[in-house]
Amino acid sequence: MFKPTIIVHGGAWAIPAELTERSLEGVKVAACRGQEVMTRGGSAVDAVVAAVSSLEDDTAFDAGHGAVLNLKGEVELDAIVVDGQTMDSGAVCGLQGCAHPVQVARLVMDKTSHCLLSGSGANEFMQAQGIARVPESELVTPEAQEEWKTYVQFSSAVKNLFSERSAPPPPSGCDTVGAVAMDANGNLAAATSTGGITAKLPGRVGDSPIIGAGAYADSTVGAASTTGHGESIMKVGLARRVGELLEKGETAQQAAEHALDFMSRRVGGAAGVIVLSKGGETGTCQVGTS
Amino acid sequence: MFKPTIIVHGGAWAIPAELTERSLEGVKVAACRGQEVMTRGGSAVDAVVAAVSSLEDDTAFDAGHGAVLNLKGEVELDAIVVDGQTMDSGAVCGLQGCAHPVQVARLVMDKTSHCLLSGSGANEFMQAQGIARVPESELVTPEAQEEWKTYVQFSSAVKNLFSERSAPPPPSGCDTVGAVAMDANGNLAAATSTGGITAKLPGRVGDSPIIGAGAYADSTVGAASTTGHGESIMKVGLARRVGELLEKGETAQQAAEHALDFMSRRVGGAAGVIVLSKGGETGTCQVGTS
Repeated sequence: MFKPTIIVHGGAWAIPAELTERSLEGVKVAACRGQEVMTRGGSAVDAVVAAVSSLEDDTAFDAGHGAVLNLKGEVELDAIVVDGQTMDSGAVCGLQGCAHPVQVARLVMDKTSHCLLSGSGANEFMQAQGIARVPESELVTPEAQEEWKTYVQFSSAVKNLFSERSAPPPPSGCDTVGAVAMDANGNLAAATSTGGITAKLPGRVGDSPIIGAGAYADSTVGAASTTGHGESIMKVGLARRVGELLEKGETAQQAAEHALDFMSRRVGGAAGVIVLSKGGETGTCQVGTS
Repeated sequence: MFKPTIIVHGGAWAIPAELTERSLEGVKVAACRGQEVMTRGGSAVDAVVAAVSSLEDDTAFDAGHGAVLNLKGEVELDAIVVDGQTMDSGAVCGLQGCAHPVQVARLVMDKTSHCLLSGSGANEFMQAQGIARVPESELVTPEAQEEWKTYVQFSSAVKNLFSERSAPPPPSGCDTVGAVAMDANGNLAAATSTGGITAKLPGRVGDSPIIGAGAYADSTVGAASTTGHGESIMKVGLARRVGELLEKGETAQQAAEHALDFMSRRVGGAAGVIVLSKGGETGTCQVGTS
């Protein structure tokens, strides 16, 4: 028997003062939900899905309710779950009108022979599975709308002055969420969910729904969930890179630090990661964020 | 000065006798196109895009013209290009009505701050970049239609008798394409393009457009392009795993073999990979295919 363990994160960006209390409360509630699931005999997969679902309900985070808006002012959601026992995985990207994208990701894993469904195909799958589409107005917060308006105004001013390729907007306090867990059987799982980045191009897919980038789990090695600048994380396969370093014998903390070091040196970018090794050790690290 | 080198592949499945000559001719033409580009001073990125574009023109392969059809009988195309110097990457998934998805992938890399665009967002981006949408009838071959019809009939018979979760159809002779190259400056690049698998769920994304799964390039390490059962390749991050083994000092051939060995042992599935190390060594291997 192993000791059931869960770690959750609510992103790695600086949390503004007015969000600190809600953010801390949100990750505590999510961790407790996940832990309860395992206490009642649930698996690590059940636990990370429960924890991330809880964070998707909480508008303090950029996932499900509270997600940021794309360039058109729409919500497009990405999520993944990975089962470390089989290395099976389910993920969705560009999902719209969904309260719990991580639950649709799990259905992709359990009900299809695929790992990742995108856009309108993901939406059709969700509805075929009997999950009702929620009105976008239920997901969008006034803060997300405000941030989008600020960006669009700033961007159109910059575009006229400089070039079409504008820098990404400054990050808000809301951020990607994730969880890693080990259950009583020693199996590991990871899950990640996000609305991406404000004013992303429609259809933009970041690291979160990508195996090895936004999440990784192999019960013979460890599990990781990442957050931060999606493109940097994808380029280096941050979550899998943590797995590589665990395989080499590094501790969970060393693996988190060294994987982020590599990302910073090779492609730049800001990110954070949570890690759980097969031995139950935990590690967390962030770079380029404050 | 380095010796410009290119390797291309046209998939790893068994090629039926009637396709063998066309397939061999297709990969030769593509390799020559890529090599010519570098002879005229082009970069490794230019070369792999030229080679893969040539394969996308050729209906002997499942990419661009000749792509297989999804469950609805539609074409949905995935492609990626990776620049090993910067580790920048551009990719598209679920693109429709596109003759050269790899060229749109390159535009994602060159013109946006993103790495991957999906579905309708990818289509809007393509059109905004001035690339005309071609009628689907130009891409679909009689063979692709025939294979789709066979699957749909078989599947509906099986579904009535057994369960909703039917096995994937037997693979056709047409397959995913890819290329890896090193240019005169010693920079590496990789590109991969595919129509995916016949009767895939709409929106299904396979390994091809995923950095570290369908392609990987880091000029300080090596480059790889993969093909085969997308879900298995994604789960283990096959292309990046080749990179890990090169970093450990394995030869290109050893890295190809050992990465596929791991995939077979851990998650099963059939696949192939082409590899070019930073030293210009080549490696190719396939498992589970004949």
